[in-house]
Amino acid sequence: MFLQRATWPEVESYLERSTGIVVPIGSTEQHGPTGLIGTDAICPETIAAGMAEAGILVGPTLSIGMAQHHLGFPGSITLRPSTLMALVGDVVTSLSVHGFTHFYFLNGHGGNIATVNAAFAEIWAQASLAQRSSDLRMKMGNWFAGQRVRALARELYGDADGSHATPSEIALTWHAYPDLARDEALDPVRPPDGPIRDAADYRKHFPDGRIGSEPHRAKPEHGKRFYEAGLADALEDYRRFAGADSR
Amino acid sequence: MFLQRATWPEVESYLERSTGIVVPIGSTEQHGPTGLIGTDAICPETIAAGMAEAGILVGPTLSIGMAQHHLGFPGSITLRPSTLMALVGDVVTSLSVHGFTHFYFLNGHGGNIATVNAAFAEIWAQASLAQRSSDLRMKMGNWFAGQRVRALARELYGDADGSHATPSEIALTWHAYPDLARDEALDPVRPPDGPIRDAADYRKHFPDGRIGSEPHRAKPEHGKRFYEAGLADALEDYRRFAGADSR
Amino acid sequence: MFLQRATWPEVESYLERSTGIVVPIGSTEQHGPTGLIGTDAICPETIAAGMAEAGILVGPTLSIGMAQHHLGFPGSITLRPSTLMALVGDVVTSLSVHGFTHFYFLNGHGGNIATVNAAFAEIWAQASLAQRSSDLRMKMGNWFAGQRVRALARELYGDADGSHATPSEIALTWHAYPDLARDEALDPVRPPDGPIRDAADYRKHFPDGRIGSEPHRAKPEHGKRFYEAGLADALEDYRRFAGADSR
Amino acid sequence: MFLQRATWPEVESYLERSTGIVVPIGSTEQHGPTGLIGTDAICPETIAAGMAEAGILVGPTLSIGMAQHHLGFPGSITLRPSTLMALVGDVVTSLSVHGFTHFYFLNGHGGNIATVNAAFAEIWAQASLAQRSSDLRMKMGNWFAGQRVRALARELYGDADGSHATPSEIALTWHAYPDLARDEALDPVRPPDGPIRDAADYRKHFPDGRIGSEPHRAKPEHGKRFYEAGLADALEDYRRFAGADSR
Amino acid sequence: MFLQRATWPEVESYLERSTGIVVPIGSTEQHGPTGLIGTDAICPETIAAGMAEAGILVGPTLSIGMAQHHLGFPGSITLRPSTLMALVGDVVTSLSVHGFTHFYFLNGHGGNIATVNAAFAEIWAQASLAQRSSDLRMKMGNWFAGQRVRALARELYGDADGSHATPSEIALTWHAYPDLARDEALDPVRPPDGPIRDAADYRKHFPDGRIGSEPHRAKPEHGKRFYEAGLADALEDYRRFAGADSR
Amino acid sequence: MFLQRATWPEVESYLERSTGIVVPIGSTEQHGPTGLIGTDAICPETIAAGMAEAGILVGPTLSIGMAQHHLGFPGSITLRPSTLMALVGDVVTSLSVHGFTHFYFLNGHGGNIATVNAAFAEIWAQASLAQRSSDLRMKMGNWFAGQRVRALARELYGDADGSHATPSEIALTWHAYPDLARDEALDPVRPPDGPIRDAADYRKHFPDGRIGSEPHRAKPEHGKRFYEAGLADALEDYRRFAGADSR
Repeated sequence: MFLQRATWPEVESYLERSTGIVVPIGSTEQHGPTGLIGTDAICPETIAAGMAEAGILVGPTLSIGMAQHHLGFPGSITLRPSTLMALVGDVVTSLSVHGFTHFYFLNGHGGNIATVNAAFAEIWAQASLAQRSSDLRMKMGNWFAGQRVRALARELYGDADGSHATPSEIALTWHAYPDLARDEALDPVRPPDGPIRDAADYRKHFPDGRIGSEPHRAKPEHGKRFYEAGLADALEDYRRFAGADSR
Repeated sequence: MFLQRATWPEVESYLERSTGIVVPIGSTEQHGPTGLIGTDAICPETIAAGMAEAGILVGPTLSIGMAQHHLGFPGSITLRPSTLMALVGDVVTSLSVHGFTHFYFLNGHGGNIATVNAAFAEIWAQASLAQRSSDLRMKMGNWFAGQRVRALARELYGDADGSHATPSEIALTWHAYPDLARDEALDPVRPPDGPIRDAADYRKHFPDGRIGSEPHRAKPEHGKRFYEAGLADALEDYRRFAGADSR
Repeated sequence: MFLQRATWPEVESYLERSTGIVVPIGSTEQHGPTGLIGTDAICPETIAAGMAEAGILVGPTLSIGMAQHHLGFPGSITLRPSTLMALVGDVVTSLSVHGFTHFYFLNGHGGNIATVNAAFAEIWAQASLAQRSSDLRMKMGNWFAGQRVRALARELYGDADGSHATPSEIALTWHAYPDLARDEALDPVRPPDGPIRDAADYRKHFPDGRIGSEPHRAKPEHGKRFYEAGLADALEDYRRFAGADSR
Repeated sequence: MFLQRATWPEVESYLERSTGIVVPIGSTEQHGPTGLIGTDAICPETIAAGMAEAGILVGPTLSIGMAQHHLGFPGSITLRPSTLMALVGDVVTSLSVHGFTHFYFLNGHGGNIATVNAAFAEIWAQASLAQRSSDLRMKMGNWFAGQRVRALARELYGDADGSHATPSEIALTWHAYPDLARDEALDPVRPPDGPIRDAADYRKHFPDGRIGSEPHRAKPEHGKRFYEAGLADALEDYRRFAGADSR
Repeated sequence: MFLQRATWPEVESYLERSTGIVVPIGSTEQHGPTGLIGTDAICPETIAAGMAEAGILVGPTLSIGMAQHHLGFPGSITLRPSTLMALVGDVVTSLSVHGFTHFYFLNGHGGNIATVNAAFAEIWAQASLAQRSSDLRMKMGNWFAGQRVRALARELYGDADGSHATPSEIALTWHAYPDLARDEALDPVRPPDGPIRDAADYRKHFPDGRIGSEPHRAKPEHGKRFYEAGLADALEDYRRFAGADSR
Repeated sequence: MFLQRATWPEVESYLERSTGIVVPIGSTEQHGPTGLIGTDAICPETIAAGMAEAGILVGPTLSIGMAQHHLGFPGSITLRPSTLMALVGDVVTSLSVHGFTHFYFLNGHGGNIATVNAAFAEIWAQASLAQRSSDLRMKMGNWFAGQRVRALARELYGDADGSHATPSEIALTWHAYPDLARDEALDPVRPPDGPIRDAADYRKHFPDGRIGSEPHRAKPEHGKRFYEAGLADALEDYRRFAGADSR
């Protein structure tokens, strides 16, 4: 069940059986010469579609994340961490008005992790400083870090998965958009690895945008397997989270 | 051309022929008992898809807008105006780093108009106060206010179009998602009209969420006509805006 | 009755018969070679004085508005939209502490409209997100957009009224400050028209500050007529607003 | 010369001979049972009018200050310190765009002192952290603390001047608005003194709003003397400030 | 009793007999060629240690203050006023959750005074605007401005104490860190005096960092006397503050 | 070398050989019935003292961190994440004015990790959005997560180290303050484990403040070993970080 395609009476009914919701969160940023700029949003959105089929309410995808380090490449968009925190805060607070209590942010971008967790802390801090008891439960689940997904990435690519513009995520976007799959060699085969700092520094150290990855190893048929692994990981994690003390 | 499905070298190429971009912006809010919560995002996104086919770059949809007055209905999400201003500011500033100069926000929600225009002013104010010359051009285009769309709405529904959960917008969502079309009478046929204030006040005065509209008049086949009218309006307005002094 | 010239027990008495207040809001910005920098504050302040005589409480004029685009001309001052929103928010919240419920901002500057409406939404959003029912009613009334004033401007100047440094507003300032009236031809007689962006762009396109207006058509005697028309428009609009559900 | 009643070419000319400006700043707050709510704005505005006659440019009065402690009395308005800091920052930055360098805030309200000085520090901190050399000079001058004014208050009222709703300031408002003078005994003659905290605490400790003052001692003819003393103090202080390294 | 070296049950017990706390606040900034960068934090921290011995709870030192004007000298750190206000607000609000009501900020830096008082006003404004009664009492005590300390400084140094990098404060740091005492002549003996603006201006006017002071007059044995005088001043002031209406 | 105990010419000299600095960062929060409230600040401060002896410049300890979840226990203080981000930003920006480029935050509190990393991103985002190349390198090093420290904790306590109020950290505070060591059994011996949310929830699930730890296993002599392990870990990590491209 997708929030955007539901009516308010349908959401009212949903709340009678569950107060949990999934919010896909990604980024709009370069993914190397062959990866889609929307990769990090497309991946969790694709997996979340499977969760929606399983009866879980899925909110609108937050397509833009914290990607300041990618601004050296055309098309990348970032939110400042303070903006992303305000955004997450408003989403959670709005939905809590209706009785939602369990917020599972299904994430596709490593660069969001610190900021979104800081956003959760900001929300809880408001309750704690006001001496209110909050019943809000927030969790970030990274689709690329689930047990099944990581095993599959290791099996298919070993350390050629790298850490940005990985064949794992690229394969999953090709599952979502089969027409966009391509078979293109990159030079060098394996780009450098290293720490992330500001955009100018990133572009200097990672000139084509990839970090340690060989995306040309991705195949459309891998994408389907990543979808299935990712969905199983996410469903398991969500149910553990939302089931515990959900009505 | 969709930003999310492009690679960064493709955006780099695009920038050689145009520095304009379309950003669909909507809202996640109740649209009466039968309208989709995502209506205001789906409508501009649907029309923007036509613009993308015409070769214009279309960014990710900003699906959540300023909808505080709808929080009395389950599923509605709002950004505070200050959050939405920060969001718009980061999107524009990020894209300006790459050389984009013309930002056309294709809007589906009346409640966004004041805030997004204030966001534009905030961006320009930064340049003006810093004594910098800014080459940024921002414009908000409301799909529902174009000449062709308004004529069509008048023709089809007269004053039964109302001002929230209108048959016009609902017909367009059914064009995008034909399976979701429904044929359901509402009681009362014509709900009240009046000013908008906070959420509690809204729910009290507009108990089922509609304002002065008769959405059951919408027909799936109307949606196609609204799509065509909306696309023609938007293309014309965008080209006038971006063509003037665009490279 | 002017708030600034009242004592607190007098305000306490006023609140027993009305919880409405008028707040004049303007701008401090160039008005062409012959118009006063304070034009946009002087105009609503002048009309509000008539409302005060009619027994309505009038607060202190907010003399500085959102005028970033005028910073290319000496003497112009702007508030960033975010500052103006904070200012409006504090004024409304402060007065609501005493029981005021109806806030009528009598405005003299088009550049304030989006931002002040965003400020109203920010105030209501706080109530809506906190699940509080707010009894606050805010409305912006633009003295220059009332029915009688527009008819008079059309009658006197036709399309020579333009959109900035208009003879209408200049005539009204001369009614307020007769000694400052002048009879000065400008070259060109009719300056260009067009969209507003940042300050550098504005100065480039509108080199003497006017937009499409012929201020030399203003006559001191017109000013009195604009005062009367503006007061009648404002009283009518205020009474409709404040009377509806005011105590 | 008043900024609000000047044209931009007149300000351009003024800048050729001086880059200093006076900004009256006050408050909108109760001043006891007999004092005007606008007292703290009226006083510096009145004195500044004398400075304007002496050829100094005087900006629009900032009529609302930091007066949170007065919110227990009808009609009082406060800006939060953070709002007032943003306001002062925007005023200074806007005017600096035109070449103004010396900003003299003529103040009528003790409660503004800390916040406005913090605002100055915030402005300078931006330059210091950006490793820019700033040529901005800001100073707050309190009309009630000048040497001549203090001597006069001591002479006329001794310690009956108290610290809020003082006969000194009330006499000055009667000089500005002679019709508003009144001759009214208050009970008790001398209200209590003590520290200022939040609004509820203030109302509890100072039930009629006065702090240690006997405002009925004010006489309209005192007001003229305060005006003259205040103007002499302010002119001397301003000229020392602006003359040093002003063009 | 030091908060940092206590356990939570010990704080719980303390709250049964007192709801007051001392928070030392200083700065990290140059103190001339021979003074320690931490001088303004070390001084109040040293005196506060004596208060802790007297049974008063002493919180962690806020070592970084508002020192934008010192950024022209290596090692200086500033908080923007807005940051320092947020910091003070969070400290007070956090401790108020536990029942603390009296907050005595023992200060070592003149540059903090305006900002910290603005921070107190911001805290109270929140209560006043929310129509809550706040029981929070905040006070800033400047160790260098107590009666005994000022008498001692006059006795030992007369006007050679100056206003920055004073022998008084330097002597006190040598009491705290005897190994760091030094006997070094400076040239010129007496540096200039004058107003403080931004960092570039400060460095230009006060090239070695001192303002009007002769720090080489400090002697380690003076430091002990300043400690004793400062402790007596602070205890007296704190007890008057916290005793009044403390439980 | 400690920044607080250095003079500005000494820092100037230091900058000639290194542009790196260590900033200890901790928290002020309950650490179970027997742990010190300042534990998380004392630990990194203690280890940083060893780094200072090794010639590395050590800044003032940031003693208060993000600890909203501990506000249910007397004495705990939190900064909201947004405040801590502003604080870290100002510290880094201030020091960068002097030429510092490598900022190593030696951290003692898990709750700071997300927020401080978000703060780093906010700093870099400013550079990236302004199209500036930043030479700032920031890294957070957690003393408790170094290889040697973790091995020692495993050896001494196995899984009885838990995750809050751990015997590891408590032993280290006893090394710093031997007089405060105590030998006290707690009931239950092993408290529960689980996720962290707001303060009320924390207090409910972890009634004495500990999470999964048996702090009574700590012995003063362990503390010395933790100090040595922590110092070796931190020196190694700092040198790798600062050495790479430091002057």
